[in-house]
Amino acid sequence: MVSPSRKSRRVLTQASASRERSLIPIGMATILPRSARQVRRLEGQLLTQIGRWGYDEIILPTFEYLDVLAPGLESELLETCYQFVDRTTGRTLLLRPDATAQVARTVAMGLTGGRFPQRLAYRTSVFRYEPEHAGRGREIFQIGAELIGVKDVTGDAEVITILIECLQSIGLRSFTIALGHVGFIKGLMTRSGLSVPAQKRAEQAAAKKDLPRLEEILKAEGITKSAAMAIREAPELTGGKDVLNRGRVLAAGDPVLLEPLERLEELYRLLGSAGYADSLLLDLGEFRGVDYYDGAVFDVFAPGVGAELGGGGRYDHLIGRFGTDLPSTGFALDVDRLFRAITFPEETDDVSRIDYLVIGPGRLVSRVSAVAAQLRRRHLRVAQQTINKVADRLLVSAIQAGQAQEARAVVVVGMPGQDRDDEILLVEHLVNQMDPTGNGRPRRPKTKRTSLTALVNAVQSHRS
Amino acid sequence: MVSPSRKSRRVLTQASASRERSLIPIGMATILPRSARQVRRLEGQLLTQIGRWGYDEIILPTFEYLDVLAPGLESELLETCYQFVDRTTGRTLLLRPDATAQVARTVAMGLTGGRFPQRLAYRTSVFRYEPEHAGRGREIFQIGAELIGVKDVTGDAEVITILIECLQSIGLRSFTIALGHVGFIKGLMTRSGLSVPAQKRAEQAAAKKDLPRLEEILKAEGITKSAAMAIREAPELTGGKDVLNRGRVLAAGDPVLLEPLERLEELYRLLGSAGYADSLLLDLGEFRGVDYYDGAVFDVFAPGVGAELGGGGRYDHLIGRFGTDLPSTGFALDVDRLFRAITFPEETDDVSRIDYLVIGPGRLVSRVSAVAAQLRRRHLRVAQQTINKVADRLLVSAIQAGQAQEARAVVVVGMPGQDRDDEILLVEHLVNQMDPTGNGRPRRPKTKRTSLTALVNAVQSHRS
Repeated sequence: MVSPSRKSRRVLTQASASRERSLIPIGMATILPRSARQVRRLEGQLLTQIGRWGYDEIILPTFEYLDVLAPGLESELLETCYQFVDRTTGRTLLLRPDATAQVARTVAMGLTGGRFPQRLAYRTSVFRYEPEHAGRGREIFQIGAELIGVKDVTGDAEVITILIECLQSIGLRSFTIALGHVGFIKGLMTRSGLSVPAQKRAEQAAAKKDLPRLEEILKAEGITKSAAMAIREAPELTGGKDVLNRGRVLAAGDPVLLEPLERLEELYRLLGSAGYADSLLLDLGEFRGVDYYDGAVFDVFAPGVGAELGGGGRYDHLIGRFGTDLPSTGFALDVDRLFRAITFPEETDDVSRIDYLVIGPGRLVSRVSAVAAQLRRRHLRVAQQTINKVADRLLVSAIQAGQAQEARAVVVVGMPGQDRDDEILLVEHLVNQMDPTGNGRPRRPKTKRTSLTALVNAVQSHRS
Repeated sequence: MVSPSRKSRRVLTQASASRERSLIPIGMATILPRSARQVRRLEGQLLTQIGRWGYDEIILPTFEYLDVLAPGLESELLETCYQFVDRTTGRTLLLRPDATAQVARTVAMGLTGGRFPQRLAYRTSVFRYEPEHAGRGREIFQIGAELIGVKDVTGDAEVITILIECLQSIGLRSFTIALGHVGFIKGLMTRSGLSVPAQKRAEQAAAKKDLPRLEEILKAEGITKSAAMAIREAPELTGGKDVLNRGRVLAAGDPVLLEPLERLEELYRLLGSAGYADSLLLDLGEFRGVDYYDGAVFDVFAPGVGAELGGGGRYDHLIGRFGTDLPSTGFALDVDRLFRAITFPEETDDVSRIDYLVIGPGRLVSRVSAVAAQLRRRHLRVAQQTINKVADRLLVSAIQAGQAQEARAVVVVGMPGQDRDDEILLVEHLVNQMDPTGNGRPRRPKTKRTSLTALVNAVQSHRS
């Protein structure tokens, strides 16, 4: 999906990026371990949720030939793409600016087979010259789903339901789905007698909720006052069911305008009966500003994030641009914005990066390896290291190394008097582990002579 | 890591790509659901294995400024990169051609902090104009690990051990790790008095095991016969421990040549004592042809794949090109080649794409949704659909839809006489499910009137 930008009305305070992020120069979006772990967990949760609805992931190429993908991309979007010449063929390549167009191309080429409906999911990056994404450079992580071959309203309800379940599954408590139908405002414009290029400009202004610009375009075209008033009113029609009643008044019996309203009402009713009414905001001006949408469309917003977290809609004629029409609908979520919108569970007092660091003198390298391997077999995260220190410095060095590695505990082999393969010294409470008795002081490292067998058994019993 | 190509000696029969793949036009590497599932499973297994050793994933940007990354890339590699001008800044961008250089840049900039050793992992794509990768276009999936800040041989042993464990964890039964040290053959060349440019050319010829070309270069430079013979012999020195003895003869007491041999011997011994001797092939000509490697290096090969599956080595001075030297070593695996090298477990007779398709007449859409939601809550993959057919066509349509969706079973709601919310008709044995009694004929769909409660309980008890 394409995220059109700058809906002035909705621009809320920009949440500050995490501290880790702010170290990264603009345009070089390296995601460091702690964030990467959270991003991957987020991706996993979203794809699992989407997968439960029978959607299969496909992996899309990072770049494509421009001439192949261009039918799915409007000229405005093409201007924000990264393009370059393929040295091998002389043809122009472009970095994927939009996943939905790629999926449409793939389906139209028959690559996903000829049986419908098809349910496809993806996790990918899209690339655009977009100043708003400055924080993460211009590489935008997306996760999305496309339902190909379902024409009736249950298809729209399905993708919106999945979207809502996705947001709930990652713990996003408060969000709003603005729901509209591009047919309504487009119908108003067509009826008013706007010229084709003026309508295109007016649609863009309406998509951005830029009412002064919309006013200006309507004036310049000299359309009737009542038609202009109806067009200007549409982007302001947001709220509950009464919005549809006002829409019907503006439609004045015109079936071209009544049909989108009926479809929207049916969709609103279906989602409401599933218990989602509180998350919905009808918006007769909503149409995402992307030219391939031609039915029900939606955007998701959350407090504290100044742009939509995602959105989608129906595109019954996009696949037709690459072949034969197939009624379809889908959504995508912007992983980076989701990341900023959700509150991650409080880190527990155990902030260790690894479970154990196994450490010993260089001459015992094989023993260090064997001990570490045995712990890893219990699915623990275990780093290993040898150090060359005299015996009485071994423990101090081991503790320092364990702290540097943010280990939960250190296992020392080869301490004086511990010569058997099974003997170890266990050091716990290394870093940032507060004393649970509550005086707020960090615990001091605690050492214990024990055996590997005892440690492994403790791990097992702790698990079961 | 960079995969240098064309080692004529090792080019085995190219395994045919899977049937699904061959549908995809060259350069447009869409990976379809069945393969995507296997690729993601493979990635997950590899990253889990690497993670157990305490390596943290970082996520690297897809493109970078050329001038920032260039110090890590040799001119030969730069020629095979995708480059383009950034419209915003006028600077040249390049699609990541190599992950190790990016990691080095990241570490040198201090983004990963100042405590060492650091253990970093990545899953990413690299992009190069490379005809050999025609099957997957020029986007190469890699998974890799980098160990930053360990100078001694235990670091080399660690990354090779992880590499071996990775290959074992994905079920690759037969593979060989060619293990060498760039210091040996480079030392021979330096000692021979080759000019600097000639040495560069000779190194490339040796990396590709192109002996006629190597011969030619040595002849043109007019170096002594014995020095030339030693250089020519090195790429042929492959095998077990005796290779090291022959190397010592060629070293003729020169410490510059003896040191790499000693290091290699220590590494070989460590890996051997861990039980990996059978997978190792010492190769004194091995040096991967990438200029940032400066210590022990290795490549992995498997029968049936005509190029290395991955490899890596020590790069003690690469990070220094971006800042301060840090002794480091790492490896990467080519996911696409691994995918071709491993045999996936035989598909069972149950090839269903989803567990259930829940289906019913349009008027019961809420009931269809509720039944599907309850099954999904049991972590099943469930698609849903409404159809508008007269009652006596409902069952036939439901079975057809279930077959088209490759469902394991269909749950029909609203069959004649089934009016209560809990009543369902279960249809099993839909597609490609052979009769286990063994006559080889597909089973016929089997219908059963039951309740949702009974179905859910059956799922639960089947699990526990």
